[in-house]
Amino acid sequence: MEYGLCNGGKRLRAFLVYTVGELFKIPKKNLDSIAAAIECIHAYSLIHDDLPAMDNDNLRRGLPSCHMKYGEHLAILAGDALQTLAFNILSDINISSVSIIKRIEIISILANAIGGNGMCLGQSLDLELQGSLISIKDLNNIYKNKTGALIYAALKMTMLSGTIYDKKIINNLKNYAQLIGLAFQIQDDILNITGNSDRTGKCQGSDEKLNKNTYFSILGLNKARKKALNLYQQALINLEYMNKLGYNTKSLMELAHYIVVRDQ
Amino acid sequence: MEYGLCNGGKRLRAFLVYTVGELFKIPKKNLDSIAAAIECIHAYSLIHDDLPAMDNDNLRRGLPSCHMKYGEHLAILAGDALQTLAFNILSDINISSVSIIKRIEIISILANAIGGNGMCLGQSLDLELQGSLISIKDLNNIYKNKTGALIYAALKMTMLSGTIYDKKIINNLKNYAQLIGLAFQIQDDILNITGNSDRTGKCQGSDEKLNKNTYFSILGLNKARKKALNLYQQALINLEYMNKLGYNTKSLMELAHYIVVRDQ
Repeated sequence: MEYGLCNGGKRLRAFLVYTVGELFKIPKKNLDSIAAAIECIHAYSLIHDDLPAMDNDNLRRGLPSCHMKYGEHLAILAGDALQTLAFNILSDINISSVSIIKRIEIISILANAIGGNGMCLGQSLDLELQGSLISIKDLNNIYKNKTGALIYAALKMTMLSGTIYDKKIINNLKNYAQLIGLAFQIQDDILNITGNSDRTGKCQGSDEKLNKNTYFSILGLNKARKKALNLYQQALINLEYMNKLGYNTKSLMELAHYIVVRDQ
Repeated sequence: MEYGLCNGGKRLRAFLVYTVGELFKIPKKNLDSIAAAIECIHAYSLIHDDLPAMDNDNLRRGLPSCHMKYGEHLAILAGDALQTLAFNILSDINISSVSIIKRIEIISILANAIGGNGMCLGQSLDLELQGSLISIKDLNNIYKNKTGALIYAALKMTMLSGTIYDKKIINNLKNYAQLIGLAFQIQDDILNITGNSDRTGKCQGSDEKLNKNTYFSILGLNKARKKALNLYQQALINLEYMNKLGYNTKSLMELAHYIVVRDQ
């Protein structure tokens, strides 16, 4: 569990939690449990995704993936227990000052995002459709569930833990999260082809080997890049209203920019 | 998910929830979510336990185990999503009339019982210690986590959803749950040797093949049987106080009896 959770990584989802939290002056104490839970879920999903029966990746964050280090049985169990740990953290009444009613809702948002109607659905579609010709619309649906749902949930959980009532802000941020979620996955597709294992910490070319549907395989490199940049620009547009109101969205802009230019 | 969850099984944990619930007149609506969540967790644990990297069982409840039917990748994901579904159910505010504060606690009890300090720990110890000589004390610790924790959690969650204040009753029932939990696992060990696949729905002799530590391998058949019966008798003793108070514990007595005489 520790190996999968604490072996580095970009902490993008936790960064989003703290960045949005800071914007709205949400107490750090309330953000910690959400950020930690989200990172537990993310780590669990990576451990299971890397398994031989799934994406069969030997390398993660530049290190042997969990099952290469500890064996498949412990990797499965570590992932299982990391999922549990997320709910453990969110239901620990000593850990956060968010009201009980909101915390039930936060747990519900997470549970809705990561199960059979969210992240697990996305991953299963991804695997089941390997080798089939699918449309970009289908691929967007896979990515929305596989990657987008957890990022979107991170944002919703964070907003709920604070006091944000401006509906336009809420909708803008929801759009922002969905846009960067998709951009993130497209950049992952691009890096799987063009990236350097030393930087990405993952095995290059693994998508092609598995005959995976990706933005690269369906649209080619240039169109995939263009789409990612377009999503980035749309994400920025969704921050304009907040900028006008005087919120400093620099970190959110930088996060969106990082997502499409990152090489790791 | 449906295949793993709805393919029969004894529903022992759900039975315990409803039986204790009936004793204390807890509304069925409150019990449903607890029973459903517990059965989701149990189904997830069986799907993952059966995987080739774990116990490598091809048969479950007389049918091909989930990975034999749908492939390892979908079995892993179905288990993952069934775990999530349990928390989904417990955090759905429309599903139960238990107070919010109690529901957070119910979620916390479940999360504490099934993760790295509970069920997953037990399963990992079970696998890691295959082939090593261990003591009955060590084996009891494995079983307490692997099997006992979820049964114990089922009871605690149920009691919390009602209004039971007599500490002696609470302690007696907690003892009862722990005693039948261990008895259940010992009877599993016995059936793995003496049982009939047609009845158990599982592969016989699989424990021996994996060089597993069991009550049978450490103590032999007679002593294992004696221990199970002893636990049964202790379980009954823990119902005596309730009987004196006029509670009808017949179903709980029958459940304890069933656990040690069952052939499936």
